[in-house]
Amino acid sequence: MALDVITLAGMTPGAIEYREDMARWQPDARGRLQEAALTLYDERGFDDTTVTQIAEHAGLSKRTFFRYFTDKREVLFAGSKDLEELMVTEVARAPESTAPLDGMIAALDAAAAIFEPLREHATRRQQIIAANPELQERELIKLASLAGALAQALRRRGVAEAPAILTAEAGITVFRIAFERWVEHANRRELQPLIHEALEELRAVTAQP
Amino acid sequence: MALDVITLAGMTPGAIEYREDMARWQPDARGRLQEAALTLYDERGFDDTTVTQIAEHAGLSKRTFFRYFTDKREVLFAGSKDLEELMVTEVARAPESTAPLDGMIAALDAAAAIFEPLREHATRRQQIIAANPELQERELIKLASLAGALAQALRRRGVAEAPAILTAEAGITVFRIAFERWVEHANRRELQPLIHEALEELRAVTAQP
Repeated sequence: MALDVITLAGMTPGAIEYREDMARWQPDARGRLQEAALTLYDERGFDDTTVTQIAEHAGLSKRTFFRYFTDKREVLFAGSKDLEELMVTEVARAPESTAPLDGMIAALDAAAAIFEPLREHATRRQQIIAANPELQERELIKLASLAGALAQALRRRGVAEAPAILTAEAGITVFRIAFERWVEHANRRELQPLIHEALEELRAVTAQP
Repeated sequence: MALDVITLAGMTPGAIEYREDMARWQPDARGRLQEAALTLYDERGFDDTTVTQIAEHAGLSKRTFFRYFTDKREVLFAGSKDLEELMVTEVARAPESTAPLDGMIAALDAAAAIFEPLREHATRRQQIIAANPELQERELIKLASLAGALAQALRRRGVAEAPAILTAEAGITVFRIAFERWVEHANRRELQPLIHEALEELRAVTAQP
Protein backbone atom coordinates (compact mmCIF):
# COMPACT_ATOMS: atom_id res chain seq x y z
CA MET A 1 0.00 0.00 0.00
CA ALA A 2 2.64 2.54 1.06
CA LEU A 3 4.52 2.30 -2.22
CA ASP A 4 1.36 2.51 -4.26
CA VAL A 5 0.32 5.60 -2.41
CA ILE A 6 3.72 7.14 -3.04
CA THR A 7 3.17 7.00 -6.79
CA LEU A 8 0.58 9.73 -6.20
CA ALA A 9 0.51 12.31 -8.91
CA GLY A 10 3.60 11.01 -10.58
CA MET A 11 5.65 11.33 -7.44
CA THR A 12 7.39 7.97 -7.33
CA PRO A 13 10.41 8.23 -5.02
CA GLY A 14 12.16 5.88 -7.42
CA ALA A 15 11.72 8.50 -10.11
CA ILE A 16 13.50 11.01 -7.91
CA GLU A 17 16.43 8.66 -7.26
CA TYR A 18 16.66 8.05 -10.98
CA ARG A 19 17.75 11.62 -11.64
CA GLU A 20 20.30 11.53 -8.86
CA ASP A 21 22.06 8.38 -9.84
CA MET A 22 20.79 6.98 -13.07
CA ALA A 23 23.70 4.64 -13.69
CA ARG A 24 23.58 2.94 -10.33
CA TRP A 25 19.90 2.26 -10.01
CA GLN A 26 17.03 1.68 -12.41
CA PRO A 27 13.60 2.43 -11.01
CA ASP A 28 10.43 0.76 -12.28
CA ALA A 29 9.09 1.48 -15.77
CA ARG A 30 6.15 3.40 -14.36
CA GLY A 31 8.37 5.72 -12.35
CA ARG A 32 10.73 6.23 -15.28
CA LEU A 33 7.85 7.20 -17.55
CA GLN A 34 6.51 9.61 -14.95
CA GLU A 35 9.89 11.22 -14.48
CA ALA A 36 10.49 11.44 -18.24
CA ALA A 37 7.07 13.05 -18.72
CA LEU A 38 7.70 15.61 -16.00
CA THR A 39 11.10 16.50 -17.47
CA LEU A 40 9.72 16.93 -20.99
CA TYR A 41 6.58 18.81 -19.94
CA ASP A 42 8.89 21.13 -18.05
CA GLU A 43 11.33 21.64 -20.94
CA ARG A 44 9.00 21.71 -23.97
CA GLY A 45 5.59 22.33 -22.44
CA PHE A 46 2.80 19.81 -22.05
CA ASP A 47 1.21 20.48 -25.45
CA ASP A 48 4.46 20.02 -27.36
CA THR A 49 5.38 16.68 -25.78
CA THR A 50 4.26 13.41 -27.35
CA VAL A 51 3.85 9.96 -25.81
CA THR A 52 6.55 8.72 -28.21
CA GLN A 53 9.00 11.28 -26.84
CA ILE A 54 8.18 10.36 -23.25
CA ALA A 55 8.70 6.66 -23.93
CA GLU A 56 11.97 7.35 -25.77
CA HIS A 57 13.25 9.59 -23.01
CA ALA A 58 12.53 6.81 -20.50
CA GLY A 59 14.21 4.23 -22.74
CA LEU A 60 10.93 2.35 -23.12
CA SER A 61 8.40 1.66 -25.86
CA LYS A 62 5.18 3.50 -26.56
CA ARG A 63 3.39 0.22 -25.89
CA THR A 64 4.87 0.12 -22.39
CA PHE A 65 3.63 3.67 -21.84
CA PHE A 66 0.08 2.65 -22.65
CA ARG A 67 0.36 -0.33 -20.32
CA TYR A 68 0.56 2.16 -17.44
CA PHE A 69 -1.29 5.26 -18.61
CA THR A 70 -4.28 5.93 -20.86
CA ASP A 71 -2.82 9.20 -22.17
CA LYS A 72 -0.13 11.79 -21.52
CA ARG A 73 -2.40 13.74 -19.21
CA GLU A 74 -3.00 10.79 -16.91
CA VAL A 75 0.72 10.53 -16.14
CA LEU A 76 0.27 13.57 -13.92
CA PHE A 77 -2.77 12.15 -12.13
CA ALA A 78 -1.88 8.49 -11.90
CA GLY A 79 -1.81 8.46 -8.10
CA SER A 80 -5.16 10.09 -7.46
CA LYS A 81 -7.05 6.82 -6.84
CA ASP A 82 -4.44 5.78 -4.26
CA LEU A 83 -4.70 9.15 -2.57
CA GLU A 84 -8.46 8.79 -2.46
CA GLU A 85 -8.21 5.33 -0.92
CA LEU A 86 -5.77 6.51 1.71
CA MET A 87 -7.95 9.45 2.70
CA VAL A 88 -11.23 7.53 2.63
CA THR A 89 -9.65 4.87 4.89
CA GLU A 90 -8.52 7.57 7.29
CA VAL A 91 -12.02 9.09 7.48
CA ALA A 92 -13.49 5.63 8.06
CA ARG A 93 -11.17 4.70 10.88
CA ALA A 94 -11.44 7.85 12.99
CA PRO A 95 -13.02 7.15 16.42
CA GLU A 96 -16.82 7.22 16.42
CA SER A 97 -17.00 10.43 18.46
CA THR A 98 -14.83 12.36 15.96
CA ALA A 99 -16.54 15.46 14.52
CA PRO A 100 -16.88 15.36 10.68
CA LEU A 101 -14.33 18.12 10.09
CA ASP A 102 -11.83 16.43 12.43
CA GLY A 103 -12.22 13.19 10.47
CA MET A 104 -11.55 15.15 7.32
CA ILE A 105 -8.48 16.76 8.89
CA ALA A 106 -7.15 13.34 9.89
CA ALA A 107 -7.38 12.37 6.22
CA LEU A 108 -5.56 15.54 5.15
CA ASP A 109 -2.83 14.88 7.73
CA ALA A 110 -2.37 11.38 6.33
CA ALA A 111 -2.04 12.81 2.83
CA ALA A 112 0.43 15.42 4.11
CA ALA A 113 2.67 12.70 5.55
CA ILE A 114 2.82 11.05 2.12
CA PHE A 115 3.51 14.28 0.24
CA GLU A 116 6.03 15.76 2.69
CA PRO A 117 9.18 14.05 1.32
CA LEU A 118 8.12 14.86 -2.26
CA ARG A 119 8.03 18.64 -2.24
CA GLU A 120 10.45 19.15 -5.12
CA HIS A 121 8.57 16.72 -7.32
CA ALA A 122 5.21 18.20 -6.32
CA THR A 123 6.47 21.68 -7.15
CA ARG A 124 7.55 20.70 -10.65
CA ARG A 125 4.22 18.99 -11.24
CA GLN A 126 2.31 22.00 -9.93
CA GLN A 127 4.16 24.37 -12.26
CA ILE A 128 3.31 22.20 -15.27
CA ILE A 129 -0.36 22.12 -14.31
CA ALA A 130 -0.46 25.87 -13.63
CA ALA A 131 0.81 26.51 -17.17
CA ASN A 132 -1.96 24.54 -18.88
CA PRO A 133 -5.73 25.20 -18.64
CA GLU A 134 -6.57 21.66 -19.78
CA LEU A 135 -4.51 20.22 -16.92
CA GLN A 136 -6.04 22.67 -14.48
CA GLU A 137 -9.47 21.42 -15.51
CA ARG A 138 -8.34 17.84 -15.04
CA GLU A 139 -6.99 18.67 -11.57
CA LEU A 140 -10.27 20.35 -10.70
CA ILE A 141 -12.23 17.28 -11.75
CA LYS A 142 -9.93 14.98 -9.77
CA LEU A 143 -10.29 17.15 -6.67
CA ALA A 144 -14.08 17.24 -7.06
CA SER A 145 -14.11 13.47 -7.35
CA LEU A 146 -11.91 13.23 -4.24
CA ALA A 147 -14.29 15.54 -2.36
CA GLY A 148 -17.20 13.36 -3.50
CA ALA A 149 -15.53 10.18 -2.22
CA LEU A 150 -14.73 11.82 1.12
CA ALA A 151 -18.28 13.12 1.48
CA GLN A 152 -19.47 9.56 0.89
CA ALA A 153 -17.03 8.26 3.53
CA LEU A 154 -18.46 10.79 5.99
CA ARG A 155 -22.01 9.73 5.13
CA ARG A 156 -21.06 6.14 5.91
CA ARG A 157 -20.16 7.43 9.39
CA GLY A 158 -23.71 8.70 9.76
CA VAL A 159 -23.09 12.34 8.78
CA ALA A 160 -26.09 13.84 6.93
CA GLU A 161 -25.72 14.65 3.24
CA ALA A 162 -25.29 18.44 3.33
CA PRO A 163 -22.82 18.54 6.25
CA ALA A 164 -20.87 15.71 4.60
CA ILE A 165 -20.56 17.66 1.33
CA LEU A 166 -19.79 20.94 3.12
CA THR A 167 -17.10 19.28 5.25
CA ALA A 168 -15.46 17.44 2.37
CA GLU A 169 -15.46 20.48 0.07
CA ALA A 170 -14.15 22.76 2.83
CA GLY A 171 -11.43 20.22 3.62
CA ILE A 172 -10.35 20.05 -0.02
CA THR A 173 -10.18 23.86 -0.23
CA VAL A 174 -8.10 23.92 2.95
CA PHE A 175 -5.79 21.33 1.44
CA ARG A 176 -5.48 23.25 -1.85
CA ILE A 177 -4.51 26.45 -0.06
CA ALA A 178 -2.00 24.66 2.17
CA PHE A 179 -0.56 22.74 -0.78
CA GLU A 180 -0.06 25.93 -2.79
CA ARG A 181 1.80 27.54 0.09
CA TRP A 182 3.85 24.40 0.58
CA VAL A 183 5.08 24.22 -3.02
CA GLU A 184 6.15 27.87 -3.03
CA HIS A 185 9.90 27.61 -3.06
CA ALA A 186 10.57 30.42 -0.62
CA ASN A 187 8.34 28.74 1.94
CA ARG A 188 10.13 25.90 3.72
CA ARG A 189 7.35 25.09 6.18
CA GLU A 190 5.93 21.59 6.28
CA LEU A 191 2.58 20.71 4.74
CA GLN A 192 0.83 19.50 7.87
CA PRO A 193 1.09 22.74 9.90
CA LEU A 194 0.09 24.66 6.76
CA ILE A 195 -3.09 22.56 6.61
CA HIS A 196 -3.91 23.42 10.21
CA GLU A 197 -3.20 27.08 9.56
CA ALA A 198 -5.61 27.13 6.59
CA LEU A 199 -8.17 25.30 8.75
CA GLU A 200 -8.00 28.08 11.34
CA GLU A 201 -8.49 30.62 8.55
CA LEU A 202 -11.59 28.72 7.43
CA ARG A 203 -12.91 28.70 11.01
CA ALA A 204 -12.32 32.45 11.22
CA VAL A 205 -14.25 33.25 8.03
CA THR A 206 -17.20 31.02 8.89
CA ALA A 207 -17.43 31.94 12.61
CA GLN A 208 -20.70 33.53 13.75
CA PRO A 209 -20.11 37.30 13.74
CA MET B 1 -28.82 44.16 -17.43
CA ALA B 2 -31.85 42.46 -15.87
CA LEU B 3 -32.82 40.72 -19.09
CA ASP B 4 -29.26 39.63 -19.78
CA VAL B 5 -29.00 38.17 -16.34
CA ILE B 6 -32.23 36.28 -16.87
CA THR B 7 -30.73 34.38 -19.78
CA LEU B 8 -28.62 32.62 -17.15
CA ALA B 9 -28.10 29.01 -17.86
CA GLY B 10 -30.53 28.96 -20.73
CA MET B 11 -33.33 30.27 -18.60
CA THR B 12 -34.78 32.98 -20.83
CA PRO B 13 -38.31 33.76 -19.68
CA GLY B 14 -39.20 34.28 -23.34
CA ALA B 15 -38.26 30.69 -23.96
CA ILE B 16 -40.75 29.60 -21.34
CA GLU B 17 -43.55 31.62 -22.92
CA TYR B 18 -42.72 30.12 -26.28
CA ARG B 19 -43.94 26.68 -25.23
CA GLU B 20 -47.14 28.08 -23.79
CA ASP B 21 -48.29 30.09 -26.76
CA MET B 22 -46.03 29.68 -29.73
CA ALA B 23 -48.46 31.12 -32.27
CA ARG B 24 -49.16 34.35 -30.41
CA TRP B 25 -45.67 35.40 -29.45
CA GLN B 26 -42.19 34.80 -30.86
CA PRO B 27 -39.39 35.19 -28.39
CA ASP B 28 -35.85 36.08 -29.42
CA ALA B 29 -33.76 33.66 -31.48
CA ARG B 30 -31.42 33.03 -28.56
CA GLY B 31 -34.25 32.06 -26.26
CA ARG B 32 -35.86 29.84 -28.89
CA LEU B 33 -32.59 28.01 -29.45
CA GLN B 34 -32.11 27.52 -25.73
CA GLU B 35 -35.62 26.20 -25.30
CA ALA B 36 -35.29 23.89 -28.33
CA ALA B 37 -32.00 22.54 -26.99
CA LEU B 38 -33.48 21.86 -23.55
CA THR B 39 -36.46 20.07 -25.07
CA LEU B 40 -34.31 17.88 -27.33
CA TYR B 41 -31.67 17.11 -24.68
CA ASP B 42 -34.54 16.05 -22.47
CA GLU B 43 -36.24 13.87 -25.09
CA ARG B 44 -33.25 12.32 -26.91
CA GLY B 45 -30.39 12.88 -24.53
CA PHE B 46 -27.58 15.40 -24.90
CA ASP B 47 -25.27 13.10 -26.86
CA ASP B 48 -27.90 12.20 -29.44
CA THR B 49 -28.92 15.76 -30.21
CA THR B 50 -27.20 17.71 -32.99
CA VAL B 51 -26.92 21.45 -33.56
CA THR B 52 -28.85 20.98 -36.83
CA GLN B 53 -31.74 19.41 -34.92
CA ILE B 54 -31.77 22.22 -32.35
CA ALA B 55 -31.81 24.88 -35.06
CA GLU B 56 -34.57 23.06 -36.96
CA HIS B 57 -36.66 22.62 -33.84
CA ALA B 58 -36.37 26.36 -33.17
CA GLY B 59 -37.25 27.14 -36.81
CA LEU B 60 -33.84 28.75 -37.33
CA SER B 61 -30.68 28.01 -39.28
CA LYS B 62 -27.53 26.34 -38.02
CA ARG B 63 -25.72 29.57 -38.85
CA THR B 64 -27.98 31.45 -36.47
CA PHE B 65 -27.20 28.90 -33.78
CA PHE B 66 -23.48 29.56 -34.11
CA ARG B 67 -24.09 33.29 -33.94
CA TYR B 68 -25.21 32.80 -30.33
CA PHE B 69 -23.37 29.70 -29.09
CA THR B 70 -19.98 28.15 -29.79
CA ASP B 71 -21.30 24.60 -29.41
CA LYS B 72 -24.26 22.59 -28.14
CA ARG B 73 -22.79 22.41 -24.64
CA GLU B 74 -22.55 26.17 -24.27
CA VAL B 75 -26.32 26.53 -24.73
CA LEU B 76 -26.66 25.25 -21.18
CA PHE B 77 -24.07 27.62 -19.75
CA ALA B 78 -24.70 30.74 -21.80
CA GLY B 79 -25.70 32.84 -18.79
CA SER B 80 -22.75 32.08 -16.55
CA LYS B 81 -20.83 35.28 -17.38
CA ASP B 82 -23.90 37.37 -16.53
CA LEU B 83 -24.34 35.48 -13.27
CA GLU B 84 -20.70 36.12 -12.43
CA GLU B 85 -21.05 39.84 -13.15
CA LEU B 86 -24.15 40.09 -11.00
CA MET B 87 -22.51 38.34 -8.07
CA VAL B 88 -19.18 40.16 -8.36
CA THR B 89 -21.06 43.50 -8.40
CA GLU B 90 -22.95 42.46 -5.29
CA VAL B 91 -19.74 41.56 -3.43
CA ALA B 92 -18.18 44.87 -4.49
CA ARG B 93 -21.05 47.04 -3.31
CA ALA B 94 -21.57 45.57 0.16
CA PRO B 95 -20.81 48.14 2.91
CA GLU B 96 -17.16 48.33 3.88
CA SER B 97 -17.72 46.82 7.32
CA THR B 98 -19.36 43.68 5.83
CA ALA B 99 -17.59 40.43 6.80
CA PRO B 100 -16.30 38.44 3.76
CA LEU B 101 -18.83 35.63 4.17
CA ASP B 102 -21.69 38.13 4.50
CA GLY B 103 -20.58 39.79 1.26
CA MET B 104 -20.61 36.38 -0.37
CA ILE B 105 -24.09 35.66 1.01
CA ALA B 106 -25.34 38.98 -0.39
CA ALA B 107 -24.14 37.79 -3.80
CA LEU B 108 -25.90 34.43 -3.36
CA ASP B 109 -29.11 36.20 -2.34
CA ALA B 110 -28.94 38.32 -5.49
CA ALA B 111 -28.49 35.17 -7.58
CA ALA B 112 -31.39 33.52 -5.76
CA ALA B 113 -33.71 36.42 -6.65
CA ILE B 114 -32.88 35.90 -10.32
CA PHE B 115 -33.32 32.14 -10.24
CA GLU B 116 -36.48 32.04 -8.10
CA PRO B 117 -39.05 32.50 -10.91
CA LEU B 118 -37.20 29.96 -13.08
CA ARG B 119 -37.41 26.83 -10.98
CA GLU B 120 -39.06 24.65 -13.60
CA HIS B 121 -36.52 25.61 -16.23
CA ALA B 122 -33.65 25.16 -13.78
CA THR B 123 -34.93 21.72 -12.87
CA ARG B 124 -35.03 20.56 -16.48
CA ARG B 125 -31.53 21.90 -17.06
CA GLN B 126 -30.25 20.24 -13.87
CA GLN B 127 -31.65 16.86 -14.92
CA ILE B 128 -29.92 17.08 -18.29
CA ILE B 129 -26.61 17.93 -16.66
CA ALA B 130 -26.97 15.19 -14.05
CA ALA B 131 -27.37 12.62 -16.85
CA ASN B 132 -24.12 13.53 -18.60
CA PRO B 133 -20.59 13.39 -17.13
CA GLU B 134 -19.21 15.78 -19.75
CA LEU B 135 -21.80 18.39 -18.77
CA GLN B 136 -21.12 17.79 -15.09
CA GLU B 137 -17.45 18.55 -15.73
CA ARG B 138 -18.38 21.70 -17.60
CA GLU B 139 -20.60 22.79 -14.70
CA LEU B 140 -17.78 22.12 -12.27
CA ILE B 141 -15.40 24.27 -14.30
CA LYS B 142 -17.94 27.09 -14.54
CA LEU B 143 -18.53 26.98 -10.79
CA ALA B 144 -14.77 26.99 -10.11
CA SER B 145 -14.38 29.97 -12.39
CA LEU B 146 -17.27 31.71 -10.58
CA ALA B 147 -15.61 30.98 -7.23
CA GLY B 148 -12.34 32.40 -8.59
CA ALA B 149 -14.04 35.61 -9.74
CA LEU B 150 -15.76 36.01 -6.38
CA ALA B 151 -12.51 35.40 -4.49
CA GLN B 152 -10.95 38.13 -6.60
CA ALA B 153 -13.84 40.48 -5.81
CA LEU B 154 -13.27 39.81 -2.10
CA ARG B 155 -9.56 40.49 -2.50
CA ARG B 156 -10.38 43.84 -4.07
CA ARG B 157 -12.21 44.61 -0.80
CA GLY B 158 -8.96 43.99 1.06
CA VAL B 159 -9.60 40.38 2.11
CA ALA B 160 -6.36 38.34 2.20
CA GLU B 161 -5.88 35.62 -0.40
CA ALA B 162 -6.60 32.48 1.64
CA PRO B 163 -9.71 33.83 3.42
CA ALA B 164 -10.97 35.13 0.07
CA ILE B 165 -10.62 31.69 -1.56
CA LEU B 166 -12.04 29.87 1.47
CA THR B 167 -15.04 32.22 1.60
CA ALA B 168 -15.78 32.06 -2.12
CA GLU B 169 -15.46 28.27 -2.29
CA ALA B 170 -17.56 27.80 0.83
CA GLY B 171 -20.19 30.13 -0.60
CA ILE B 172 -20.32 28.19 -3.87
CA THR B 173 -20.71 24.90 -1.99
CA VAL B 174 -23.53 26.42 0.08
CA PHE B 175 -25.19 27.60 -3.14
CA ARG B 176 -24.82 24.18 -4.78
CA ILE B 177 -26.44 22.40 -1.85
CA ALA B 178 -29.28 24.93 -1.66
CA PHE B 179 -29.78 24.82 -5.43
CA GLU B 180 -30.01 21.03 -5.42
CA ARG B 181 -32.64 21.12 -2.70
CA TRP B 182 -34.50 23.85 -4.54
CA VAL B 183 -34.80 21.94 -7.81
CA GLU B 184 -36.10 18.81 -6.11
CA HIS B 185 -39.71 18.72 -7.18
CA ALA B 186 -41.16 17.69 -3.85
CA ASN B 187 -39.48 20.63 -2.19
CA ARG B 188 -41.45 23.82 -2.76
CA ARG B 189 -39.33 26.06 -0.53
CA GLU B 190 -37.70 29.15 -2.01
CA LEU B 191 -34.03 29.29 -2.89
CA GLN B 192 -33.03 32.14 -0.61
CA PRO B 193 -34.00 30.53 2.72
CA LEU B 194 -32.42 27.27 1.50
CA ILE B 195 -29.14 29.18 1.01
CA HIS B 196 -29.31 30.50 4.57
CA GLU B 197 -30.12 27.03 5.88
CA ALA B 198 -27.07 25.56 4.13
CA LEU B 199 -24.97 28.44 5.48
CA GLU B 200 -26.01 27.52 9.02
CA GLU B 201 -25.02 23.92 8.31
CA LEU B 202 -21.61 25.13 7.15
CA ARG B 203 -21.21 27.21 10.33
CA ALA B 204 -22.11 24.16 12.40
CA VAL B 205 -19.53 21.87 10.76
CA THR B 206 -16.72 24.43 10.96
CA ALA B 207 -17.48 25.71 14.49
CA GLN B 208 -14.73 25.24 17.07
CA PRO B 209 -15.56 22.06 18.98
